[in-house]
Amino acid sequence: MQQELSTDSSGSRFTPLVVVELASNVKEETIAWLLSRIRDQQQNGGAELFVEQLGPSVEAQEKENPNIFLVGASWQRLLSGAEDVGLFKEYNDGSMRGFTRANKHNFKDFKGDGDGFLSMAECQYIIKHELETLRAKDETHVPGHSQAKLYPGKSIIRRLLSKGLLIQIFPLHEKEELKRLSFSWYKKVKLSLQPLDDIRHYYGEGQALYFGFLEYFTFALVPMALIGVPYYLFDWEDYDKYVVFAVFNLIWCTVILELWKRFSASLAYSWGTLSRKKAFEEPRPGFHGVLGFNPVTGREEPLYPTAKRHLRIYLVSLPFVLLCLYLSLYVMMIYFQMEGWALSVHDEDPTFWTGILIFIPSIIYAVVIEIMNLIYRYAAEFLTEWENHRLESSYQNHLVLKVLVFNFFNCFASLFYIAFVMQDMVLLRQSLATLLITSQILNQFMEAFLPYWLQRRRNKKMIRKVQKKRTLEEKELPLVEQVRLEADMSTYLGTFDDYLELFLLFGYVSLFSCVYPLAAVLVVLNNITEVYSDAFKMCQVFKRPFSDPAANIGVWQLAFEAMSVIAVVTNCALIGMSPQVKAYFPESETQLILWTVAIEHGLLAFKFILAFLIPDIPKHIQIKLSRLEFESLEALKKKVRSHCLVFVSMELIFNIFAIPHSSGGVFITPKWLQTVEEKNHCSVALVKSIIYHPAAVFCFQVCNCQQLCFPLFVLAKAFLIKC
Amino acid sequence: MQQELSTDSSGSRFTPLVVVELASNVKEETIAWLLSRIRDQQQNGGAELFVEQLGPSVEAQEKENPNIFLVGASWQRLLSGAEDVGLFKEYNDGSMRGFTRANKHNFKDFKGDGDGFLSMAECQYIIKHELETLRAKDETHVPGHSQAKLYPGKSIIRRLLSKGLLIQIFPLHEKEELKRLSFSWYKKVKLSLQPLDDIRHYYGEGQALYFGFLEYFTFALVPMALIGVPYYLFDWEDYDKYVVFAVFNLIWCTVILELWKRFSASLAYSWGTLSRKKAFEEPRPGFHGVLGFNPVTGREEPLYPTAKRHLRIYLVSLPFVLLCLYLSLYVMMIYFQMEGWALSVHDEDPTFWTGILIFIPSIIYAVVIEIMNLIYRYAAEFLTEWENHRLESSYQNHLVLKVLVFNFFNCFASLFYIAFVMQDMVLLRQSLATLLITSQILNQFMEAFLPYWLQRRRNKKMIRKVQKKRTLEEKELPLVEQVRLEADMSTYLGTFDDYLELFLLFGYVSLFSCVYPLAAVLVVLNNITEVYSDAFKMCQVFKRPFSDPAANIGVWQLAFEAMSVIAVVTNCALIGMSPQVKAYFPESETQLILWTVAIEHGLLAFKFILAFLIPDIPKHIQIKLSRLEFESLEALKKKVRSHCLVFVSMELIFNIFAIPHSSGGVFITPKWLQTVEEKNHCSVALVKSIIYHPAAVFCFQVCNCQQLCFPLFVLAKAFLIKC
Repeated sequence: MQQELSTDSSGSRFTPLVVVELASNVKEETIAWLLSRIRDQQQNGGAELFVEQLGPSVEAQEKENPNIFLVGASWQRLLSGAEDVGLFKEYNDGSMRGFTRANKHNFKDFKGDGDGFLSMAECQYIIKHELETLRAKDETHVPGHSQAKLYPGKSIIRRLLSKGLLIQIFPLHEKEELKRLSFSWYKKVKLSLQPLDDIRHYYGEGQALYFGFLEYFTFALVPMALIGVPYYLFDWEDYDKYVVFAVFNLIWCTVILELWKRFSASLAYSWGTLSRKKAFEEPRPGFHGVLGFNPVTGREEPLYPTAKRHLRIYLVSLPFVLLCLYLSLYVMMIYFQMEGWALSVHDEDPTFWTGILIFIPSIIYAVVIEIMNLIYRYAAEFLTEWENHRLESSYQNHLVLKVLVFNFFNCFASLFYIAFVMQDMVLLRQSLATLLITSQILNQFMEAFLPYWLQRRRNKKMIRKVQKKRTLEEKELPLVEQVRLEADMSTYLGTFDDYLELFLLFGYVSLFSCVYPLAAVLVVLNNITEVYSDAFKMCQVFKRPFSDPAANIGVWQLAFEAMSVIAVVTNCALIGMSPQVKAYFPESETQLILWTVAIEHGLLAFKFILAFLIPDIPKHIQIKLSRLEFESLEALKKKVRSHCLVFVSMELIFNIFAIPHSSGGVFITPKWLQTVEEKNHCSVALVKSIIYHPAAVFCFQVCNCQQLCFPLFVLAKAFLIKC
Repeated sequence: MQQELSTDSSGSRFTPLVVVELASNVKEETIAWLLSRIRDQQQNGGAELFVEQLGPSVEAQEKENPNIFLVGASWQRLLSGAEDVGLFKEYNDGSMRGFTRANKHNFKDFKGDGDGFLSMAECQYIIKHELETLRAKDETHVPGHSQAKLYPGKSIIRRLLSKGLLIQIFPLHEKEELKRLSFSWYKKVKLSLQPLDDIRHYYGEGQALYFGFLEYFTFALVPMALIGVPYYLFDWEDYDKYVVFAVFNLIWCTVILELWKRFSASLAYSWGTLSRKKAFEEPRPGFHGVLGFNPVTGREEPLYPTAKRHLRIYLVSLPFVLLCLYLSLYVMMIYFQMEGWALSVHDEDPTFWTGILIFIPSIIYAVVIEIMNLIYRYAAEFLTEWENHRLESSYQNHLVLKVLVFNFFNCFASLFYIAFVMQDMVLLRQSLATLLITSQILNQFMEAFLPYWLQRRRNKKMIRKVQKKRTLEEKELPLVEQVRLEADMSTYLGTFDDYLELFLLFGYVSLFSCVYPLAAVLVVLNNITEVYSDAFKMCQVFKRPFSDPAANIGVWQLAFEAMSVIAVVTNCALIGMSPQVKAYFPESETQLILWTVAIEHGLLAFKFILAFLIPDIPKHIQIKLSRLEFESLEALKKKVRSHCLVFVSMELIFNIFAIPHSSGGVFITPKWLQTVEEKNHCSVALVKSIIYHPAAVFCFQVCNCQQLCFPLFVLAKAFLIKC
């Protein structure tokens, strides 16, 4: 670790990993209580972590929050934590196995005490987990803040967060590693693959999977883009040939999604998240309800009736979403009116300016769409919060569903209208191009340049402040300043927006690119800049996020698959509408439609069969997984069958009865053994007895028995030990 | 157990559970070897079961096979076997848990030694499992039969089966219980639900699920049948109103399949198969290949390249199936020609006889369909066997797929042709009725009456034979005769044919019942008789089958769901073709088709969303499952954290060094403990030491260490024990 060491109050030095920022108005009493709970030993219900208050900055200001704490842990503690969270690491034989300290030396790269075995991101994840599972014992409220109620078993950190006493917890960046990562990621000139393993090492699996998907998606688009370019160069107005393109589109979007599943499984396996068991999910911080008992854990926790939540979802959220969709439809109709007006102006008096005027409504519409998406996003978050979901995963799913449906409708409704109601392919192509380009420009601006500019300003201020005090001899910021700088950085809000953007781009390409083959080229270009801007954002603009041990891209896989089904339907309809196909059925439009529908059904069936036939997990990984499962099954059998040895050591009985120590046969007769067997429903055999006055040690082999009792030894002060 | 006890060769009496019949030409040497392997102790690689040869029958005939053996086991052995197969039983708290002997007393209904805890079907399943996992040790071939090759780890029973040395293994019926079961199942007059729990108790989960599904399906059809009757009574010719029926059909078939999943999960949970882990699947008996090493288990076993199997599937099986489909199409066209001829004859000269003649082609066609299905079935079995699948499950899936596709095509192609090509609703109704009724009559005859008649004849012969020797004082057959009688009974070939029949009936109802609403009534009537005839078959005609611990109806659920998707498409098309709907679009047929297609897509989307929204497992069972999972996670955590005690007992070291027994401090110094800790990467603390001349016992508390070694005690003859 390159970072400076902090000194704990106990005098031991440790590497700070995670920062905990409490509100500045938190009482001294509360802080003392929290720190003691964090430092306390695990058997007393503490987290057994190191924690230390951050000193004042170089130029202490009044508005500066003094309640910033650094948290770290010993290597022993981190290893035991790794076991708690069920971390998978690479084993000596190349397979991935759940880490246990008992056979830690069989893990690859485990040397000495295990220093350096866990990556910093893993350590920070473990500390976050340990902090979050720090539970109230018998406190009824947070000491010093009686409004923050507690009950036994409630996560302290989550209560502090929901009451605003805890502002944030975030992991620290590691300057050296970050520099190395950013160099290999986006600062080099040579175009190469992203360093996915390094990204995973620094940011965790969730982030790495996003960047992996972004890269995969970009590569998958390259053939489309290559085919698209000649279409653009030679046959701009000849959309008869687009039938070939549409057919290619169909197969493409099914196959790439299936192959991604396999690729993602390979990545997740090599990162140890594929077979990692999910821990029992705790209620999310904002969840509230009447205190009751969880039927699964039996622990006290707030309960909220499902029926009530369903009422909120179906009577409030659903109508709201429908209303928003209607509004979006309304805006779309206004756009078409504007479009019509602009066209009529251009037709009446075609000048250069009216030529530009034709594009104005589309650009305005694209901007309005982005604004509507943004506003709707906040409303959706508010509503989903209000629906009061118990689990973070359920909250996320409902939020994603709401946002997806609206964004899909908002972005594509006008295109569908143009394609199937107006049947105007030229306008469709023009709208698609405008929408795609405008939204890409807007996105790049909102995502990268704005935060970059804000961050630059902030950084400069901080550096200037520090330089006032110090000379320029040290280029690196001291730890105190670094922590305060990072605390001020924006928080990365997860991969939601990034995936959403990819989802919409995927939609543009798979739904309509057959009328505008250049779309794939644009998306490829966009994705390449996206990699760089996202990488830059992650490394420079945002606080380091906690790693998120994801095994796949979750609900987004489903969303992309739904989109690919819609793409099949849309492309079939576009093909059916093409003049080339229409020429085959000169007399009967009915025949044409029936054939189109029949082929579409065939393609859909083929798609489902294909998805069913291609295994989601590559065979070599499937074999590794089954081998592990087989081994654990075999181990279980052996354990069940293994006989165990029981030692009984006695002192007193010999003193009482004063039996000569030549033989133990007095007690251990076949009759006595039979009594023990009957009483314990097991088989018992004497393996060895050592009897010396006044001590005796008997060793019995016992077969499959958990609670053994020896009827004649009740008087004896005996050790009883089982394995 | 009501059955007579047999006497083992060792003199102990046991209840015979399973019968093993060897070929009559098997050598004495082979029999002696097999029996010794079955009787041998488990630690020597035996099955530790009781086995005894069946005596000659009352009137010994020359052709009688003497090599029939009865197998049984002690209760202890059965309980340990229950653990091996991973049996789930009801726990004291009402949940279902994997049985372990260690906490056997916490299971409900476990009394005393566990006599009666396992049902007879479970005992027989355990014995079958133990026999099948009896593996060759170092034999290179079956003694006495050098053509039957063996290799270490090969299942002996499977080799004997594939070489024809073993004719059959089957479980014995239990007369008393069977009498009780058959009375409550089909012999009573009062109409009531089937005793599913008793069926499961006697036949196992696979059978019980089939009968549960049959009953569920019948009840699900009752509303359809009730709606169908008035249609038949009042509006026979008015198929405008069938639109309502078709819409009802659509919703019905989606909802019942989703609800069945929940019902089946409830049943499987209460029977303990829902969360039961599947054991590692062994290669099926007929599987052959070059001897190699299984990449999962590392065991020696035959390997067959997947590429070769794929070649066989795609280059032979697939073309064969397509050829058969073409043949079926050809037969269909012949049927239509016959039909046309019969109609023309009737039109020319309509008499009573020509009126009957109209129905003749349909009846002939129905019979031909049944015959073709039968022949194809054998061909499909042969081909699938030839494809050489490693696993029984994969074999079954390929067989089911082949048979399903052909049967579906064979049964429904003519109906689709009439409905959508000829668009003749009157003919469709007539064909449907003829097909349905003829196939039902044929099925009932083939399934119940024929085997019943054969069985009766056989039974009478046997009883006559026995009565010749004995007087009529005993009504019950003696065990020897009973076993020989059962060995001669037909073998139940699994639920395949029964499910297939249900699948086709489901097709008739869900696809076309809107043009012939009486179909549901006919299917309900058929199902009721089916319950009785199947129950009768199971109890009287067939050998008792081994129970099959199924958690759901497997691949059939998928087949029924695929059918329900096809039903949505078909019904939408039928609605679109109805005159009533056509009247809404008087001018444009195109509009009609587009609307129909749009509504169909909407319905399909709704169907998938519905299937996604309805949880497959009812909430109360979900809670029970998560509680169990949570408990095992918690237990794992506790186990990881628990410290263990290590006893070290020494004798010699004191003799050598002759140290006075007042203190053990000489050895166990803090410095020494530190050495142990460093050497073992764990924490060690001395808990207790008892030292008497010349014996010493030290007890250490050791934290998280699997292989402990004590550096200074290497010279000592010490017990070392861990837990």
